[in-house]
Amino acid sequence: MNDNEVIELLQSNFSFWEKMNEHDKQTFIRSSQKVCFSKGTNIHNGNDCTGVILIKSGNLRIYMLSDDGKEVTLSRLFAGDMCMLSASCVLDSITFDVLVDAEEDSECVVVGGCAYEDLARRLPEAKIFALETALARFSDVMWVMQQILFMSMDKRLAIFLLDEIAKTGYDTVKLTHEQIAKYMGSAREVVSRMLKYFSTEGLISSSRSEGIKILDKKRLRALTL
Amino acid sequence: MNDNEVIELLQSNFSFWEKMNEHDKQTFIRSSQKVCFSKGTNIHNGNDCTGVILIKSGNLRIYMLSDDGKEVTLSRLFAGDMCMLSASCVLDSITFDVLVDAEEDSECVVVGGCAYEDLARRLPEAKIFALETALARFSDVMWVMQQILFMSMDKRLAIFLLDEIAKTGYDTVKLTHEQIAKYMGSAREVVSRMLKYFSTEGLISSSRSEGIKILDKKRLRALTL
Repeated sequence: MNDNEVIELLQSNFSFWEKMNEHDKQTFIRSSQKVCFSKGTNIHNGNDCTGVILIKSGNLRIYMLSDDGKEVTLSRLFAGDMCMLSASCVLDSITFDVLVDAEEDSECVVVGGCAYEDLARRLPEAKIFALETALARFSDVMWVMQQILFMSMDKRLAIFLLDEIAKTGYDTVKLTHEQIAKYMGSAREVVSRMLKYFSTEGLISSSRSEGIKILDKKRLRALTL
Repeated sequence: MNDNEVIELLQSNFSFWEKMNEHDKQTFIRSSQKVCFSKGTNIHNGNDCTGVILIKSGNLRIYMLSDDGKEVTLSRLFAGDMCMLSASCVLDSITFDVLVDAEEDSECVVVGGCAYEDLARRLPEAKIFALETALARFSDVMWVMQQILFMSMDKRLAIFLLDEIAKTGYDTVKLTHEQIAKYMGSAREVVSRMLKYFSTEGLISSSRSEGIKILDKKRLRALTL
């Protein structure tokens, strides 16, 4: 990614670009950095204002963490998406902390939080953009909450597996039970028990070497209704 | 509440009041209605755009509902608070439904969703106000989620009881186990069991006629740490 690419990315993703004057545009560009995060990197630890993260390629995961290390995935972001919850200084009304990891090698542009905040104070369109982007994650979180609170585990696991294969295009999910539990905010034992049940029902086959192979997509989908 | 009181309430609660021109102010006032909701009324059912609800007195509860009737309280609003999640037409980025009930007899002013939306399209300050008000609820929901997912039940119940007595100023919580369970997104059995445990520990005494009396605030508070 060269500098022109960065400018193009900023232009095409920040809808208020044309509302900025030349000076603001230059400041915005100077405050933006291209960063490559390798798979597994923790990008935002919940405390500092990391800035606004724009994803060019790859995949970020937003999650919350309990004192004893339990994680719940709140949202996954892909190319073209933007992470605003990592720019806490821009959003006064947000009083909680989330963490952000790179799930794959990810090419991103990070816009400095202070520069964005300064702009948002003067340009209502930039403020509205930040608030709307953050609010879209609110809907994600409500969806996660709905699943955790109200859905039975079989339904949740079926949705998770179908989402995974839809995303990768393969019929096999290459995740450990531990990883699946982590993503679903559940316990490994619960996931293993349910996968075993799916397996005896002929919905999937599961092995340590092969991962989880979906055998009957139709019946798995029926579980999600 | 007479018309002048309504206008005063609007003036002092909508921070963008002075940014409106005279015509907009008049339209805003005409679109606002004083409404008294009696205790237990469902004010917003999650579907229609009920409008922006400004609370003059009383107490509203925002909650989510599962297909099988399970409820989880997301937030409680009191005098001076505003409910923006009931104005779905103002907030494009919100894709979930919540319900709103009056928990006490409540005097409110409801601003029509269409009128607000129309204003917000023209006045950035009104748009920013709506987004920020909605985003504040995001923080509430994350707090609820944190409690549900990560905290043990004793801690959650202790927090709930201490919150209740802090709110009412009495040492006794006049709610049934069923109601407490509903507010906490838990089951009555779980609440009853934990209250019994608190009771044998000398933290509270509980009876059908008297309600739940807090006997040892200090030790109860220690549980919340």
